Amino acid sequence: MELKNYAPSKLNYIHQITIDCVILGYSNKEIKVLVPKLIFNGDFFALPSGFVFQDEDVNDAAKRILHERTGLENVYLEQFQVFGQAKRNSTTFLDKLTALNPDIVSDQNTAAREHEWFTKRFISIGYYALVDINKVVPQKSSLDQSISWFNIKDIPEMIMDHEQIIMEARNALRVHLDEKISAFKLLPETFTIKEIQELYETIYEKEFVRTNFQKKILEMNVLERLEKKYTGAKNKAPYLYKFKS
Amino acid sequence: MELKNYAPSKLNYIHQITIDCVILGYSNKEIKVLVPKLIFNGDFFALPSGFVFQDEDVNDAAKRILHERTGLENVYLEQFQVFGQAKRNSTTFLDKLTALNPDIVSDQNTAAREHEWFTKRFISIGYYALVDINKVVPQKSSLDQSISWFNIKDIPEMIMDHEQIIMEARNALRVHLDEKISAFKLLPETFTIKEIQELYETIYEKEFVRTNFQKKILEMNVLERLEKKYTGAKNKAPYLYKFKS
Repeated sequence: MELKNYAPSKLNYIHQITIDCVILGYSNKEIKVLVPKLIFNGDFFALPSGFVFQDEDVNDAAKRILHERTGLENVYLEQFQVFGQAKRNSTTFLDKLTALNPDIVSDQNTAAREHEWFTKRFISIGYYALVDINKVVPQKSSLDQSISWFNIKDIPEMIMDHEQIIMEARNALRVHLDEKISAFKLLPETFTIKEIQELYETIYEKEFVRTNFQKKILEMNVLERLEKKYTGAKNKAPYLYKFKS
Repeated sequence: MELKNYAPSKLNYIHQITIDCVILGYSNKEIKVLVPKLIFNGDFFALPSGFVFQDEDVNDAAKRILHERTGLENVYLEQFQVFGQAKRNSTTFLDKLTALNPDIVSDQNTAAREHEWFTKRFISIGYYALVDINKVVPQKSSLDQSISWFNIKDIPEMIMDHEQIIMEARNALRVHLDEKISAFKLLPETFTIKEIQELYETIYEKEFVRTNFQKKILEMNVLERLEKKYTGAKNKAPYLYKFKS
């Protein structure tokens, strides 16, 4: 079986390795994940993915893929887990895809050999990225019909194990948050303490006591206090902060 | 170039993927790492490594390799990082190896094609294992001259990026320790609070205040108190504990 025109040429890629990117943003007290919908018939939603060139560092491949999908340079990203189950590339997805899209299947032998690598088992290296959602203009790839932000609690049905990859990315983010002090990457450049607290509450799905949270976050000594944020009610104007770079 | 008899057959392995295992033990207030010395001329020290079969889960491959090197089933292990630099398989190591061991090099074309895969770039998936050092009987592979425990602060010069892999394993252990409550895997079945404290102090390379440490560790509610450990000085006998499974 061969997927004509759609499977990348096997030249120069490391075979059986893929990078899957969980691109996370934040708005309206929701963690959002950037999910493309594939161009094929049937509702196929798949994480932004890509391959590693033979002469390319794996981390550079992840940066390249993220740049292609967000237009951003220097995106914050973490390699968090390898998804290596032998059966994760079961043929269920490809069977369904080709059943609904018979025109993409060809049995020309030459082309079949060229693209055979694409239907083999892949080991996926999972990365998550934290982006300021206001700065991102999501980019479709040539295989995407559309690309949109979804609330992480309300994602569409994903192909293969991509839903699991998203959930493991969220788990990793929760574990990393204190150590890597990375949550600020999800916020605009300046923010109030209340806005950080809302972000943490959204990530951990629990509420924190305001005074304790403020004490803890300030003790981390990573924030620089700026001017007050005037909103009309002058006496209650909170300070704005930014992350010390 | 071909390494006759030594390079595994390419059949059934996923190419360009390797698993490197950092097997960690603990004794005499030292974190130890299990390091084989290769059979070749020259002092080549390399982490216990292996490949993934086409129909094998990556985690199962790691378990298999750990079992081969420790004789233990159900070893505690964590996949902690992918080492994916394009230049990590520079030819420096192979050049030095073949210069010192000219008898292993052949230029027979058939054999060369069979083993060409073995000299390509490999992406390494790093796992660390925590073992009770008293239960392990280290096992040499057919490529090992010897295999020994080294103090992690005093390891021999390693091939390629294997020293970096060891150091990243230690960093990962430190980060994981509270969340995964895994340190007890390094201890015998029963232990005193003082012995746990010494272990934590060894891992983090810093001292803890005894009363604070005891309070914190007991509050984790993962220990079951057993009988006292009688050592002669009856009034000072400390309690033994075991980890609640």
